[in-house]
Amino acid sequence: MAIAWQATAAEAPILARMLDDFNVEFEDPSPGVAVLEPRVARLIAEGVKEYFLAAVDDDPEPIGFVQLSFIRSVWKEEPIAHVDELYVVPASRGRGAGRALMEAVVARARERRAPGIEVVTGEDDTEARRLYESCGFVNEIEGPDNARALFYELDLR
Amino acid sequence: MAIAWQATAAEAPILARMLDDFNVEFEDPSPGVAVLEPRVARLIAEGVKEYFLAAVDDDPEPIGFVQLSFIRSVWKEEPIAHVDELYVVPASRGRGAGRALMEAVVARARERRAPGIEVVTGEDDTEARRLYESCGFVNEIEGPDNARALFYELDLR
Repeated sequence: MAIAWQATAAEAPILARMLDDFNVEFEDPSPGVAVLEPRVARLIAEGVKEYFLAAVDDDPEPIGFVQLSFIRSVWKEEPIAHVDELYVVPASRGRGAGRALMEAVVARARERRAPGIEVVTGEDDTEARRLYESCGFVNEIEGPDNARALFYELDLR
Repeated sequence: MAIAWQATAAEAPILARMLDDFNVEFEDPSPGVAVLEPRVARLIAEGVKEYFLAAVDDDPEPIGFVQLSFIRSVWKEEPIAHVDELYVVPASRGRGAGRALMEAVVARARERRAPGIEVVTGEDDTEARRLYESCGFVNEIEGPDNARALFYELDLR
């Protein structure tokens, strides 16, 4: 049985460690825990990002997190929720932590009256896709436009 | 010859009209010009969104716009630029307005020291993809992960 709760700035150390583990696992660059920890604490304190942590059974040690932004839109009066990052430590996958985190995200988005929730994921990330689809998310393959949405980036560094 | 300039709140009426035309053309819902106009003016005044307008030759009438957000990231000290919307009126396409708008976006992102620029587009929108690719943007098909990035949404309304 997995549970999720909203993290406070005091939990920045565990979030920073998991953020760093996340990017190392997926071979994305990370500035390292020492940079991430004060940044996470500041983002929480300023209300720019929200984080939820998950744990399973009787072990209070967090085994996963999700990072959420609320982004102002010209189309809607209320900000749209955006799932920036979602991670469960490899040894603890398949125990419901991801599901508990996404349920917390949906509840929080409803609480803040967000008109919708967005997330970008890799087409080959079948675990993440199954999770999002089980929560009701649709991507453009299945959507009314019958075309995929592609995510483009331009690196300026 | 197309030129682009950053819009002020006084240009909210033309932006609202083009935003509405944009969503009507692509069969996306729009709250209408009367709702969009004050919202655009407020988003500009509060610095939440930035808009650029484009015109061609000797006609000062704007024929296209781009909407830009700067989004805080846990991974970088400076916010990442996000191209929310890009539109050129149908009768004026192919005259360089899109290119001028994207060059303005790249210049503005560099000015604000953004580490990168992101944009989501439809896989079947060949015109937009050609424009982004000509500006140096890459999507995950061509990227190091060799997998597409999919954009998922959950409608909460």
